[in-house]
Order: sequence, then structure tokens, then C-alpha cells
Amino acid sequence: MSEPIDLIRRQVADLHQELVRHQLVVWTAGNVSARVPGRDLLVIKPSGVRYDELTPQNMIVCDLDGNVVEGEHAPSSDTAAHAYVYRHRPDVGGVVHTHSTYASAWAARGEAVPCVLTAMADEFGAEIPVGPFALIGDDSIGRGIVETLDGHRSPAVLMKNHGVFTIGEDAEAAVKAAVMCEDVARTVHLARQLGEPQPLSADDIDRLNFRYRNVYGQRPAAQ
Amino acid sequence: MSEPIDLIRRQVADLHQELVRHQLVVWTAGNVSARVPGRDLLVIKPSGVRYDELTPQNMIVCDLDGNVVEGEHAPSSDTAAHAYVYRHRPDVGGVVHTHSTYASAWAARGEAVPCVLTAMADEFGAEIPVGPFALIGDDSIGRGIVETLDGHRSPAVLMKNHGVFTIGEDAEAAVKAAVMCEDVARTVHLARQLGEPQPLSADDIDRLNFRYRNVYGQRPAAQ
Amino acid sequence: MSEPIDLIRRQVADLHQELVRHQLVVWTAGNVSARVPGRDLLVIKPSGVRYDELTPQNMIVCDLDGNVVEGEHAPSSDTAAHAYVYRHRPDVGGVVHTHSTYASAWAARGEAVPCVLTAMADEFGAEIPVGPFALIGDDSIGRGIVETLDGHRSPAVLMKNHGVFTIGEDAEAAVKAAVMCEDVARTVHLARQLGEPQPLSADDIDRLNFRYRNVYGQRPAAQ
Amino acid sequence: MSEPIDLIRRQVADLHQELVRHQLVVWTAGNVSARVPGRDLLVIKPSGVRYDELTPQNMIVCDLDGNVVEGEHAPSSDTAAHAYVYRHRPDVGGVVHTHSTYASAWAARGEAVPCVLTAMADEFGAEIPVGPFALIGDDSIGRGIVETLDGHRSPAVLMKNHGVFTIGEDAEAAVKAAVMCEDVARTVHLARQLGEPQPLSADDIDRLNFRYRNVYGQRPAAQ
Repeated sequence: MSEPIDLIRRQVADLHQELVRHQLVVWTAGNVSARVPGRDLLVIKPSGVRYDELTPQNMIVCDLDGNVVEGEHAPSSDTAAHAYVYRHRPDVGGVVHTHSTYASAWAARGEAVPCVLTAMADEFGAEIPVGPFALIGDDSIGRGIVETLDGHRSPAVLMKNHGVFTIGEDAEAAVKAAVMCEDVARTVHLARQLGEPQPLSADDIDRLNFRYRNVYGQRPAAQ
Repeated sequence: MSEPIDLIRRQVADLHQELVRHQLVVWTAGNVSARVPGRDLLVIKPSGVRYDELTPQNMIVCDLDGNVVEGEHAPSSDTAAHAYVYRHRPDVGGVVHTHSTYASAWAARGEAVPCVLTAMADEFGAEIPVGPFALIGDDSIGRGIVETLDGHRSPAVLMKNHGVFTIGEDAEAAVKAAVMCEDVARTVHLARQLGEPQPLSADDIDRLNFRYRNVYGQRPAAQ
Repeated sequence: MSEPIDLIRRQVADLHQELVRHQLVVWTAGNVSARVPGRDLLVIKPSGVRYDELTPQNMIVCDLDGNVVEGEHAPSSDTAAHAYVYRHRPDVGGVVHTHSTYASAWAARGEAVPCVLTAMADEFGAEIPVGPFALIGDDSIGRGIVETLDGHRSPAVLMKNHGVFTIGEDAEAAVKAAVMCEDVARTVHLARQLGEPQPLSADDIDRLNFRYRNVYGQRPAAQ
Repeated sequence: MSEPIDLIRRQVADLHQELVRHQLVVWTAGNVSARVPGRDLLVIKPSGVRYDELTPQNMIVCDLDGNVVEGEHAPSSDTAAHAYVYRHRPDVGGVVHTHSTYASAWAARGEAVPCVLTAMADEFGAEIPVGPFALIGDDSIGRGIVETLDGHRSPAVLMKNHGVFTIGEDAEAAVKAAVMCEDVARTVHLARQLGEPQPLSADDIDRLNFRYRNVYGQRPAAQ
């Protein structure tokens, strides 16, 4: 087993604990994957295995058509969707899928989460869009994700009647997007329960998103 | 004490911790039971004992009429309902009862949870149905569970003004159904607060449920 | 320091952890007290001290007029209310006060929680009633509690615009009532959000409450 | 490094754990700062660093214009707002910023939280007011905070479409205000979902607030 894969195995196993810790998943319902840098491989959760039992060793390595390359278990039943994203989005290094509660409630209505919080403008740069209803079993889900996010700033898509898929430059960024997606889906849900949120202008969303991508965090200051 | 009973005692004691961990119960309000394979016995929680104090040793063994066979405490006051289910459903190996919050809110209105999420189609294959209002103390609750679930795909029933009962091929499957029941009851509740969820077609529910039962998890791939 | 007081000090300190664990309190907002059996004394939380820092040693012993008998800190600012209850209800051995979220929301509207769940019929035997708005600083709160609960089965009262007080034969019973009060306040709140809960008949409430008080738990079976 | 700064570094690092524990923040979204007593310095969280990784050593020391004086990381992107508050409010020793869920929902609507709970009268002495929408990057947020809280009893302000800022005589008091702000924002939100909360009179709010500031906690009894 080559070394970069070992690091990715560990990272993917560990990041599933973030899904649990942020209460985005119950039982075995969500999954994280990562692309293996420089190789046409991905690492993903085994299907139907509980989060407590996940280790670097029982992660599954697949090629980008979703065929198992290494691993004793079957891969996540969502592997085809993850693989489709990696094939069509070379910029994507990580994919996350959850049925997190508030985001899935918006998805059940087929309604995008409007961008009415500065934190949403930062992380998503726009509304969180709704993708099509798609059955599991072929490329429908993967295609729905890629087509909906094409040209969209948001790293998250609400798949209708289903749940959330997020993408990132690596798996940690995709997990962060999944965490923030649920957080803003909840806040905007609550805001809407007692009236209408104040809109943010497109200009303000642009300015916030630009600054967040270029100034925030431990990058050399760009201003 | 025979060995299979010892394993079941441990399993039932441990699964109560899953009810706590998934926040399905407070104080002493819920209970798990399991059928002892090959014998006309069930293992269940003692009545009114807190979850922290449950051990394999203080679980109660009853016959399928609910009479205590082994155990120093009184069995759960819901034992008659569990026993009725085991007598009338030989396919059932585990039963769970909770007053989990969102499911009980639907039960208080006497309203079924509509099947509008792919995760619901997977696990429940239909709406989560409502059973009759029934007083504790005789076979009314057990009969209500069995009659409502007869011919229904759902392993969960909302007993009116009361709470949830779930069944499974073993106790872990029944606990999983209880966890998923609360999860989807919450998501659909939230979806309904701000509008109407999109319906899933009966055909799509059938396809999802078939696939989930036959392909998902660590079974040999059927497709 | 006499031995029974030491036991009560430990019990009261420990039960505050139950308030935290069941998420009934934040920061320093709730308190538990217990009567010292056979003596005109009560043990209560010190004022404004955080839950992490509570020990048997820093609990405060007061007489039933609320005067400090033992303790280096000032007693809870709610001591007068607790003391009033002990003076006027010799059957009460424990009192709990919280601002638990859902119960306080009903209290803010001045609305009783209707008895529409079997678990409510069991523990409360009726709606959870609303007491008057009363300012802290004299006997107003204590009198409001005692007058509202006089002749009422419920061990919990919602003090208007304020929070919850519960009573019990001992402090653990009062804590249990506080836990169950929040639990049913939450479930009925959720039920009401999407329609009207089904009513329970007075007869069914009576039967459930009688059985719960006489059969449930580890008492000799009465049936 | 002088000793008082070391204490403040530790305090600020530790208080971030309170934000996590009270579920006021996800990922890296909130921050705590403290003024260094007797010096024109503040200590604040580094930008974009996760809460698990915060230590006294990686806290950032800035002057009151927000320039880094000690520290290897960039300071929180909200440092300019914190610094503005310290420059214009010499009575303030601590500032906290969160996007806590319920408070941010009120902020998204641009709606103040009305004072309808005794706990709110105690801690806030009034409604929790709404400040202007302000973009990050200059003094707009700091000025919005200071102008909104000028002459107001509340230590918390809801910045429109953004989140919460709280102030205190020290950082712990500001954290307490942030915890209480979310707690009452949640309770009043829930109360409003099913009707209208009962109002508190201005006189009662004054009396409660006076007593809380002068009698509550471990001060010498003033009555």
C-alpha cells in the first residue's frame, strides 16, 4: 500500500467522526470520500458500517468508475455519485454526503436556502441550490450534483427529497461545507418561521465572498 | 443460565445505551427487548430503573406471556405489549419502545409521517402509520401494534397520544428503526413547517425500498 | 456536621449535574434543594456559582425561613421560594427551579401545557398549570407555587414570564418532574406547530395516573 | 512576555471552549477577546484556526488599532470590530462574537428580541437591540456595535444579517452574555411560534434588573 493512500485513508476515517460530532448523520447514513492526489483513485466509507467501527484499514479504495481496488467490504452505496463528481470535476478533492436535518427539510420541499446571512455569503457566495430528484443505482445523482453546481459558487447542493452533497478542494473543505450548510439551513429556517429575513444585495454577497476567499484565515494578507 | 441468554442479556443492556446516545429517551421512559433464539423467552429492561444502572445481570427474562422467569426486579411495564408482538409475529426478534420527541408529536396529533424522503423509502418503504389509542394494562397496545403493522412495510408504528414501537429481525434492527423513525419524523416536521414537501411517487418508493433491502450494506451485491 | 445532612449535601450537589445533563439549565440559572429529614432545614445551591464548581461542601444549609445556618456563600437567590414551599407543604422533600427552554416558552405566553400524552397523564395527571407573575424578593413566588399546585396532581408549575418550579417527595423526584416537564412541554409544542393534538379524556388520564402511581417501577405489583 | 498577558492568554483560550460547550459556534465562526488590564492591548483568537487547536500560546496580542504585537498567526478577521469597541468603551474588558443560531435568526429578520422573561430582565434589562448591517473590512461593524449599545443596558447586540456581539467588564462576563443571549433568543422564538408572549412592564424590568445587578451572586447582601 503506497504512503499517500495511507494518509488519505486516515483522513477519510477521521473526518467521518466530524460528521458525528456535528450531528450531521445518524446510524450509517452519511459518507465522506477523498481523491488520492495524483492517482485515479478515491477512498470512501464502507457501506452500512457504523461510525464507531470506521478505521483507516476498513476504508475502501475505488477507481474513478467506482470499482473496488482495495478493501474487504462493499463501498458506500453512494460511491457512484462520488466517482461521477471526481471524473467530471478535476478541481474537486473531496465529496461529502449527509441527510443533515435542516438541509434535508429544505430538500424535501425542493427549496433553495436563500443567502441572507453574512456567513452564507462567505462560505456559499449565493443561495444553496436544489438539484433534481434522482434515484440511486446509476449516474443520475452524480450528474445532478455536477450540473447543479456547474458555474455556481456554492460547494453544497440540496438533492430533492434526499439530502446534501458538498464538494471541496480536499475532504476537509467538503466536510466544512457540510457543517456550514446545516448551520445556515437551520438559521434561515428559524428566521423564516417568524417572518421574512432581510435580503442581502448581490453586491454585498460578492464583496463578502471575495474577501472570505482571499483574506480570511491563515493566508498572507491580500489587502 | 444458558449461554445464548447471556449474549442476549448483554445485547439488550447495551442497546439501551443507544437509545440514550441518540436522545430517544429521558429518565426511564423507553425500553428494548429481544427474543431468545430458539426458546419461548424474551429479555427486557427492568421497570423504572435508570439507563446508567442497566447491566446484563439486571435484565429481566420473561416467557412470551410476560411472566418473569429470571430477574430480581419487576419487568418493564410495557412487557405485555412486547410479549404480544413476539407471540403474534414469529419473524420479529426485537422490539423497541420510545417516546422520542418528534415521533411523539406526530402521535399526539394522530397523524402518519408521510414518505417524502429517500431515507424513509429505504428504511420504512411507506408512511409511518398511526396505531390506535390504547391503555396500558392488557393486550390493547400489543394488538394495536400488530394490527397496524400487519401487511405494512414500516417497522415503526406511532401509537396515538403515546409514542413509538418498532420491530426488527433482531433487537439492533429494531433500535435502528427507532433511531431512523425519530430522524425522519424530525426532518418531515421541519419541512412541513415552511410549506409542503414534494411527494415521492409510489413507484420510486418501491424501487428505493427494494434496492435498500437487497443491495445496501455488507451483503453480496445483488445487481 | 450531622450525617444525614452530609448525605443530603451530596445528593443536592449531584442532582445539579442532572440538570446540566438534561440541558435544563445554562450558566447558573437553575437550582435544586432538599429538606433535611426530621429537621427544619433545607440544603440548596449557592448563588451565582457555576455547576462545575458545585460540591457537597459548598452547598448551603438554611432554616425554613431561608436564613443561612451553614455555608460560606450566599444561598441561591431563589431560596425564599424554596423555603416557602417547605413551610407550607410538609409532604414536599425536594424543590427544583429551572428556566428550561420549552417550558419557559409556555410560561412566557402564560399558557398551560395541555395533557395530551400518556407520559403526561402518568407523571402529571393533568395539564401543567400556570402560576402568577411574581417578582423575586419576598414570598410572592413561593405563595404562587403553593397556591397553584394546591389540590393539583401536577408536581410542576409554570411561573408566568419566568420558568418552572417542581416539587417531589424528595429531591430526585423533583428533578425527575423537571426533566419530564421539559420533555412533554417540547413534545406538545411540536405537536401544536402542525395542528391540534388529539385530546385525552379525563377518564383515561385518571386511569393512567392511578396505574403509574401504584404499579409502575420497583414496587410490589398491585394488580 | 509579561505575566498579566499570560493569564489573559489562558483565559481567552479557555473561554473559547465555553462557546463550543454551549453550542454557540461551529467550525471557526466565533471569537472571544479580552483587554489586557492597564495596557492598550487586547488578546484574541487567531483567524480560521479550529477550537480544538487553540492554546494560550497561539492567541494573538494586538494593540487597540488591531495591529499584531505578538503572535505567529493572523488575528481573527473580526479584530477590527473588537478593537473599535475597546477604543471607544473604556469600561469594556471583554468582547465576544458568535453566529449562534436563534440569535442569528432574529438578526436575519432585523428584529430585536423583546424582553418577556425575568431572566432577560435580569441579564439584559431591556430588549436585545438590532444594530445596522455592516460589511467587514473597516470600522463599520465596531461603530455599529458601539452606537447601538450606547446608553442601552443590554450587553448584547444583534448585527443585522450577521450575528451577535456581546460586551462585558471582562471576557467571562461577555461570554456569559453570549450564552444568555442565545438562551433567551431561543425561548422567546419558541414562545412566539404559538402565540404572543405576555409583556413585562417597564417597571418590573427595572426592578428585576436593579436587583440582579446589586443582589444576585456572591456579593455582600445589599438588602
